[in-house]
Amino acid sequence: MKRPLLLIANDDGYLAIGIRFLIDQLKDMADIVAIAPDRPRSAAGSSITTQLPVSAKKVMEEEGVTLYSCTGTPVDCLKLGINQYVDRQPDLVVSGINHGTNATINEHYSGTVAVAKEGALQGIPSVAFSLDDFSENADFSPLAKGIRSIVKYVLEKGLPSGTLLNVNFPKCPSYRGIRLCRMAMGKWEDEFKRHEVYFGTDYYWIGGVQTDASADESTDSWAMAHGYVAVTPLKIDETDYAALDRLTTDWPI
Amino acid sequence: MKRPLLLIANDDGYLAIGIRFLIDQLKDMADIVAIAPDRPRSAAGSSITTQLPVSAKKVMEEEGVTLYSCTGTPVDCLKLGINQYVDRQPDLVVSGINHGTNATINEHYSGTVAVAKEGALQGIPSVAFSLDDFSENADFSPLAKGIRSIVKYVLEKGLPSGTLLNVNFPKCPSYRGIRLCRMAMGKWEDEFKRHEVYFGTDYYWIGGVQTDASADESTDSWAMAHGYVAVTPLKIDETDYAALDRLTTDWPI
Repeated sequence: MKRPLLLIANDDGYLAIGIRFLIDQLKDMADIVAIAPDRPRSAAGSSITTQLPVSAKKVMEEEGVTLYSCTGTPVDCLKLGINQYVDRQPDLVVSGINHGTNATINEHYSGTVAVAKEGALQGIPSVAFSLDDFSENADFSPLAKGIRSIVKYVLEKGLPSGTLLNVNFPKCPSYRGIRLCRMAMGKWEDEFKRHEVYFGTDYYWIGGVQTDASADESTDSWAMAHGYVAVTPLKIDETDYAALDRLTTDWPI
Repeated sequence: MKRPLLLIANDDGYLAIGIRFLIDQLKDMADIVAIAPDRPRSAAGSSITTQLPVSAKKVMEEEGVTLYSCTGTPVDCLKLGINQYVDRQPDLVVSGINHGTNATINEHYSGTVAVAKEGALQGIPSVAFSLDDFSENADFSPLAKGIRSIVKYVLEKGLPSGTLLNVNFPKCPSYRGIRLCRMAMGKWEDEFKRHEVYFGTDYYWIGGVQTDASADESTDSWAMAHGYVAVTPLKIDETDYAALDRLTTDWPI
């Protein structure tokens, strides 16, 4: 039987240990083509490069694994990988492992999750992995079993069309289990610090604090705070069907 | 009675005629604070600037209208506007008018729609406007009545919490009406052209063709192709609840 083909990307760049760990965990299960930004591209969302060309180069090749570095955004990487660097439709897109959580509303800004959204848009089952640890030297070893079991499940069973999985690991030596979750809603507040630094121009650094308005037991936020891996299915059809029904009965225009 | 406060942003930059037209149409209805990128930032998605500071400067001020130029992404602009340039929670976030459509799956990449998502994340009713015409000199005049009536409706009635409107106008001298829609799904194909141009390195320009798989009468794609304004409610809670139910009964991990 032909081995499955995995297309891997991330937003921390091809040098990040998160993507290297991910490749090492999965290379016995599948052939791997990986394509990652040439530098860190956190918080890139689903941005794509339209005003400039992008390029890529092979930076590693071994039995069953090829890794490319690409000048584009995370979603550029995935698009270019599908278009140029695989010889057939991949069986699975895997993104990450991100250094830092992408649970709750942060998935909106995440390049890591955007890669999995792009995979789902291309009709490929897609999973994004993140660890709640921003350190460049984060310890990914506790994630090995969970990552392998989730990838094995999705390779065997697939995912509903238009669904991706946003998987977030808590930072702890061993997690208590894996929970299916909804995304907690919440809000970033006090996001900018003002610094008047240069010829009278005010500069602002982003920061702030996040408040989770709805962190009950059904949420990813709760799961991670209690030592569980949060698996949140997201959908790429972002139509608000409930609002569509409501507006249809109340729309005078 | 106090006039409503609108916070306006876009992704084409503060010099785009789309945002100037939008301000002109709405300034009799509300006080306006507008903050827009200092240069075109199309396809920025919900990206934010985390590795550098951002700055902004006032570029226009008249009775009831202030316009700022900002070095950040579209979502940076909205966040900074809320944080620094309004004295109370805005009654409405308005984004655009984008030069080019953001209907169907293109909303995923759009900075214009991302601004409205950010507004909804901040708890503010939010509307994104786009015109299916990429020209810098697009004729926005046919949009005046539709924009005013939609803004008036949302100011009066609000929107469900967590819902935003993605409004796309067809390019035509006069549209046939306004339709509430779901987003058509579809796919971009053959996205890159290869150019070997520089010391043997291959460069790729993004392009491609979009196929709409599901453009029935309920979709934004159908509405625009038939001369209607497409109003698509989107939700910021991207949890796939149907998949969550299905996976919960079929999850061995």
